[in-house]
Amino acid sequence: MHPLDHAFMAQALQLARQGLYSTHPNPRVGCVVVAQGEVVGEGWHVRAGEPHAEVHALRQAGERARGATAYVTLEPCSHYGRTPPCAEALVQARVGRVVTAMQDPNPLVAGRGLQRLREAGIEVTCGVLEGEALALNAGFVKRMKTGLPYVRVKLAMSLDGRTAMASGESQWITGPAARAEVQRLRAGSSVVLTGADTLLADAARLTVRGEELGLDAEQTALALARPPLRVLIDGRLRVPLDAPFFQAGPALVATRLDPPDTYRAAGLDVLTQPGGPGQVDLQALLGELARRGANEVLVEAGPRLAGAFARLGLVDEYRIFMAPKLLGSIARPLLEMPLERMSEARELSIIDVRSFGMDLCITACPL
Amino acid sequence: MHPLDHAFMAQALQLARQGLYSTHPNPRVGCVVVAQGEVVGEGWHVRAGEPHAEVHALRQAGERARGATAYVTLEPCSHYGRTPPCAEALVQARVGRVVTAMQDPNPLVAGRGLQRLREAGIEVTCGVLEGEALALNAGFVKRMKTGLPYVRVKLAMSLDGRTAMASGESQWITGPAARAEVQRLRAGSSVVLTGADTLLADAARLTVRGEELGLDAEQTALALARPPLRVLIDGRLRVPLDAPFFQAGPALVATRLDPPDTYRAAGLDVLTQPGGPGQVDLQALLGELARRGANEVLVEAGPRLAGAFARLGLVDEYRIFMAPKLLGSIARPLLEMPLERMSEARELSIIDVRSFGMDLCITACPL
Repeated sequence: MHPLDHAFMAQALQLARQGLYSTHPNPRVGCVVVAQGEVVGEGWHVRAGEPHAEVHALRQAGERARGATAYVTLEPCSHYGRTPPCAEALVQARVGRVVTAMQDPNPLVAGRGLQRLREAGIEVTCGVLEGEALALNAGFVKRMKTGLPYVRVKLAMSLDGRTAMASGESQWITGPAARAEVQRLRAGSSVVLTGADTLLADAARLTVRGEELGLDAEQTALALARPPLRVLIDGRLRVPLDAPFFQAGPALVATRLDPPDTYRAAGLDVLTQPGGPGQVDLQALLGELARRGANEVLVEAGPRLAGAFARLGLVDEYRIFMAPKLLGSIARPLLEMPLERMSEARELSIIDVRSFGMDLCITACPL
Repeated sequence: MHPLDHAFMAQALQLARQGLYSTHPNPRVGCVVVAQGEVVGEGWHVRAGEPHAEVHALRQAGERARGATAYVTLEPCSHYGRTPPCAEALVQARVGRVVTAMQDPNPLVAGRGLQRLREAGIEVTCGVLEGEALALNAGFVKRMKTGLPYVRVKLAMSLDGRTAMASGESQWITGPAARAEVQRLRAGSSVVLTGADTLLADAARLTVRGEELGLDAEQTALALARPPLRVLIDGRLRVPLDAPFFQAGPALVATRLDPPDTYRAAGLDVLTQPGGPGQVDLQALLGELARRGANEVLVEAGPRLAGAFARLGLVDEYRIFMAPKLLGSIARPLLEMPLERMSEARELSIIDVRSFGMDLCITACPL
């Protein structure tokens, strides 16, 4: 470890974050090339199929890469994919040292990129700011390791834990700053997932709207060029095709029924789970989404569907937006999850609390 | 205003906070005397009947008080109470300038202390760090201005807004750090108030326990020497006299019934509201508590009584301790407050969020 390793890795992570809304299904990666204590190259991965972060940074560094240190937020790849392996590019540029934040999470390849570098006589350090790097690509890491995406459940509730009045009256519990954060959560997800209850009640579209993101022009353009896949769970195909959700663009419908021809004619992707009528198998659906490259899934659903994810232990993270209101004791619950005994209570850990305007957002993860 | 006014007033406020657990029914007041930029006297009001902050500070300053500046967190008193007026003491010490954070909140006396100082040729500045001073004595200020105490409702809930399982199973939702903070909230209150439901379900005593306060020896001793009055609202006298609450020391019972002689024999203070059976009139009870000198009332009750305070608009502040758990949708609500329409929702403002161990505490005030 060198004294400035953390500082340069932090800079590489900051670069990687520029890809927050565009690298799907690839991970967000940043790279800084440092020669004699000076940054001579910077790069970040913009989108799949385009050069990796290392290539951008090495190009910028040019001849000064020779003998320099490359800080990369993820182990450089060692295989030929849509682009040549970055480990090879680092070797050819004759860098003297490579510092990475984390290994490639794919157990089949983890460490091979680093091994290739070491074989070429390059000094390698791994694990600098690893926690930050893991958090930045929580979805990619989980998909590589488990074959399932990282599931983030967004909830909006009052201070007394209610989402809507008993009548269903609900809109605009939280303020504009919280809603902009939800837009950014959508834009950073591979998939935004909802249920029929929500669409029938709210006429929701679950789209990303550039003017509500609150991002600069470059980030907004990147986000809009790679919108998340909108997924509807509708076991009984209750949502009519003229619903705003369907009118708003391409979508995937997960169901237990064979859809009428009108669905395909409307350009919809329909995923019919075999076995006849019943609830959609959420775990199987998540597996299928992961196979299609989904790293992060944002669940924006009502208490019933969100509660089903919770009951099945499929939630990696809750983002609970809390409006400073009391909706009272007959209003709707946060999650449909009937538990009888305290021993059944789900234990979480609160990992972040932020203000958005007058609202709070609490991030909590199951223990 | 002089450049260091804020710094010295902050020091005086810090001194005043030492009286957090002991000055009831008086306000917490601190004083710093500064001569030629140097602090020559410090004082804070310890308890009712003992000298005020100014007297302590002037004594310590001695001759150096002449021409000095006195920083006092509350307008010096101008009347003879249990101690002589502090405005007079400042005049006699011949200080050159007095800086106060706020006027005396009692509309009948507000400004008279400052007027007495000005008449004696002393330069007076008022309003330095007024917000902090008002917050430190929110109860005293409210009682002086309205004849009612400041009502703080403590609630402990899960992330999904539930206080207990449907069966009533509930204890230890929050962790030890949060429970220590509740002990400090009790110790700083004039009154700790609960209802029969809570005592029948939990065997609660609502006492201040020195070893759980997490304070230093001096503050712990002060707190234990001036415990809050424990008040039980029990309209139908349902709580038996052998309940731990009654065994734990003096208490006041507010009821609608004439108590049997056993109550007075047990040394209990009974406040019977006239008019026969029915709910205890909470507003009238609060008025009576204020007449007895209660500045801050901590309500530690179940959803029914806490909900009644909320419905009647009698709550000044909620302290919501939130444990990182999900108790599910059939668990008990935070407040019994059946509201039908979103327009009836109570709007609050979140003014503070803190961590206590794994729990959060959200402070919210009605708008």
